[in-house]
Amino acid sequence: MPITTRAEDYSKWYQSIVDQAGLAENSAVRGCMVIKPTGYALWEKMRDALDRMFKETGHVNAYFPLFIPKSFLAKEEQMAEGFAKECAVVTHYRLKAIPGQGVAVDPDAKLEEELIVRPTSETIIWNTYKSWIQSYRDLPLLINQWANVVRWEMRTRLFLRTAEFLWQEGHTAHATQAEAEAETRQMLEVYRKFAEDYMAMPVMTGPKSEGQKFPGAIYTLCIEAMMQDGKALQAGTSHFLGQNFAKAFDVQFQSETGSREYAWATSWGVSTRLIGGLIMTHSDDKGLVIPPRIAPLHVVIVPIYRKDEEKASVYAACHQLAASIREYPRMPWLSYEAISVKVDDREQYQPGYKFNDWELKGVPIRIELGPKDLEKSACVIARRDVPGKEGKQFGIPLSGAAEVIAKLLPEIQQSLFDRAKAFRDSHLRTANSYDEFKELIEQPGFIWAHWDGTAETETKIQEETKATIRCIPFDRPDEPGVCMISGKPSAGRVIFARSY
Amino acid sequence: MPITTRAEDYSKWYQSIVDQAGLAENSAVRGCMVIKPTGYALWEKMRDALDRMFKETGHVNAYFPLFIPKSFLAKEEQMAEGFAKECAVVTHYRLKAIPGQGVAVDPDAKLEEELIVRPTSETIIWNTYKSWIQSYRDLPLLINQWANVVRWEMRTRLFLRTAEFLWQEGHTAHATQAEAEAETRQMLEVYRKFAEDYMAMPVMTGPKSEGQKFPGAIYTLCIEAMMQDGKALQAGTSHFLGQNFAKAFDVQFQSETGSREYAWATSWGVSTRLIGGLIMTHSDDKGLVIPPRIAPLHVVIVPIYRKDEEKASVYAACHQLAASIREYPRMPWLSYEAISVKVDDREQYQPGYKFNDWELKGVPIRIELGPKDLEKSACVIARRDVPGKEGKQFGIPLSGAAEVIAKLLPEIQQSLFDRAKAFRDSHLRTANSYDEFKELIEQPGFIWAHWDGTAETETKIQEETKATIRCIPFDRPDEPGVCMISGKPSAGRVIFARSY
Ligand SMILES: [Zn+2]
Ligand SMILES: [Zn+2]
Repeated sequence: MPITTRAEDYSKWYQSIVDQAGLAENSAVRGCMVIKPTGYALWEKMRDALDRMFKETGHVNAYFPLFIPKSFLAKEEQMAEGFAKECAVVTHYRLKAIPGQGVAVDPDAKLEEELIVRPTSETIIWNTYKSWIQSYRDLPLLINQWANVVRWEMRTRLFLRTAEFLWQEGHTAHATQAEAEAETRQMLEVYRKFAEDYMAMPVMTGPKSEGQKFPGAIYTLCIEAMMQDGKALQAGTSHFLGQNFAKAFDVQFQSETGSREYAWATSWGVSTRLIGGLIMTHSDDKGLVIPPRIAPLHVVIVPIYRKDEEKASVYAACHQLAASIREYPRMPWLSYEAISVKVDDREQYQPGYKFNDWELKGVPIRIELGPKDLEKSACVIARRDVPGKEGKQFGIPLSGAAEVIAKLLPEIQQSLFDRAKAFRDSHLRTANSYDEFKELIEQPGFIWAHWDGTAETETKIQEETKATIRCIPFDRPDEPGVCMISGKPSAGRVIFARSY
Repeated sequence: MPITTRAEDYSKWYQSIVDQAGLAENSAVRGCMVIKPTGYALWEKMRDALDRMFKETGHVNAYFPLFIPKSFLAKEEQMAEGFAKECAVVTHYRLKAIPGQGVAVDPDAKLEEELIVRPTSETIIWNTYKSWIQSYRDLPLLINQWANVVRWEMRTRLFLRTAEFLWQEGHTAHATQAEAEAETRQMLEVYRKFAEDYMAMPVMTGPKSEGQKFPGAIYTLCIEAMMQDGKALQAGTSHFLGQNFAKAFDVQFQSETGSREYAWATSWGVSTRLIGGLIMTHSDDKGLVIPPRIAPLHVVIVPIYRKDEEKASVYAACHQLAASIREYPRMPWLSYEAISVKVDDREQYQPGYKFNDWELKGVPIRIELGPKDLEKSACVIARRDVPGKEGKQFGIPLSGAAEVIAKLLPEIQQSLFDRAKAFRDSHLRTANSYDEFKELIEQPGFIWAHWDGTAETETKIQEETKATIRCIPFDRPDEPGVCMISGKPSAGRVIFARSY
């Protein structure tokens, strides 16, 4: 089944990529997805790269309970307001079998206090930190958790917005405000590096406006990416939480000078939502495109033969080539993992079908090897990111193919990043009046505009145009002006867009 | 705080190891544990080793929903009976804030059908497989999931029995009974290899009795280990599910000959319970003992100095030694990971404190390095598994220390296995009458005894002695006899024990 093109229907195109590349599907439970093996393999690569980066910056992993006592949520007011409306609530701990009628909730097994399924873990974690933090010597506490979380969304979309999703949530505690703020910034930089260097997805970095910050945060920093339809995707956030949670859960420590002080907190997270961002950054009308550094499979070799007597020698050459690629010296760039390669030996399909199938699945490099290539001890190498003849190299000697591939993978990675960045930069526009803004917002892209810094103005713009402030970029031009709505002073332009 | 000895109170000893080695603790949510960084690092090593073994045997990972519609559980009768009594039930999807009173469940947000938090995922997975399996070409389906599950246990104990735990659950579908049974057996063998080769924990392998099998299984195979108090721990199970779930969820496929057939199923799992087994297999009255192949940290170097002028040179030598160990060529035996080493540079503690601390935490090798060693360009190497002088090697040249360690690690691993196996074998007893059985069961260990194969006899023995049939070992002696209770024929002895 051919996939829907972006021009035909962007949203169906997204859905058909997720579907036909075998990444995920909806489950029998409303809003919860099944992450299929191909999608999960991608998540594993992303998770492993992030996990290495967290550990290199001194963090360790731990695991906290899935359930949170209802009263914990109420201890931090913004958190209660932010999450109460989308919580899955556990009220009973037993079913009973009713003969011939299946099972029913046992009314005798009602919990004294309801439990909510974690939508995020600040409360249960800070309740735990209370006993872990006594002295400045216990700080900093640099902990990350890989977990599933649940937010009861009414309108869901695979990867982008689901009731249950997988994520990591970092929760750190520090002795000083400066240290916590440095951590907040450091983890945003980890996310930026991961997004740009691994996912080849250019991002803007900076704080969110007050209206867009995380419930319970003093401020939220974000990485924000532009999708191919010009909409924004919040791809990761890092929050400076001040002493809010330390005060809510009474986490005090003895400082070096002997005083009792509340600990300073950060939290930061990225989720399976990143897979949605990956799809909408690189994929095309032929299917998924996966950047090599996070591709579970780098190279697929398609054997080509017509006559039965050609088959054995072609297969042998394919498998020998695969072995030579696998054995190529491991590169730091691939985190010392071997180049991953597969020979597509499915007998029931023709090569043309296989080409389409692997393009659909986004494997960065395809090798074609047939009897004529074999005569010349050569093969054809095709890049996924450059479809058609343009992306093919003919007559690559089999003996040198592994090296060609080892050099081509970083080239593909860079080219994907450059292309995405060129697209993003060519869809950044500037509005100097609200009228101009309202015109531009109907076109794909982000808009630089002046804003007076108030929630009222932000809300008005959102209500009238569906655009929100995505980011106040760290590296925005130093260009004071006046708000396009109120005419009040503005320290510089901010980024507006419609978003996922 | 010194740990409780095994002789004083075995159960308190276990608790104090978990506690003081910093592995886990109870949370604010009854029955749910917090897995602390040290415990989680251990789980990561175990998970990664298992995950490699699953992938080497052709399995892929995927992720299925946390929630299961209540009615799914009812579709497989044994499953409903087995799990209904310990399910966490989600009944509502929203809270509402009550000004000044925190949050309350919103009665308007009641789910039409309650959801249970997965206690195991056969039902939701087989409901999904229905659309994945159409033809014999779609089989076998070899999928594993790493996930959290919840079983509402009333009496919990860290790692051994908790309401929420982490595990992996494999769920495979096959075209034939023979293939599914081969898979069931293969995965048990993977577990045996993991338990014995990585955890250094000897296990017995074989089927469970009918009374002890998994709800919904045709039969259950298990690996069963003996703890230091002589009790049994079920460490992993692999179930042949026949066509039970295919029939419950109507999963039929077209066979090669064109007929419609129900798929054959297996499932298999191990959990964070293994950490409890690890502790009770190897640890001693000084603390945790971790086998090198799953140790997050292999070597700790403790610098020793009295005078300030010695400090710089001792530290420099320690760090140089650490670097030489880290750079030692990677070994397949450690899955090509570097030997992990840390210099304990905590200034506030004396060497003696540090020795105890690392013994408590179970690090396999400790290196002591002081000015006198430095004069001879040497160091002292101490084995965790052999406490005291006996386990120390003096005067190891710094230049050769990395190699000594690379050789010592597998030696420690083997020695831990041998010791555990000798303990196990010396606590296997044989009962020839029920009177003898009742005497022996009061001593630590397993008992070989004849049993007539009926549930009645098994239940009677359990009620009267608290012992259950742990395993009908594959390699049991070919020794027919008569049941110690009923006098009816028995094909061979089975293993009885009290258990965790
Ligand atoms: Zn455009
Ligand atoms: Zn004994």
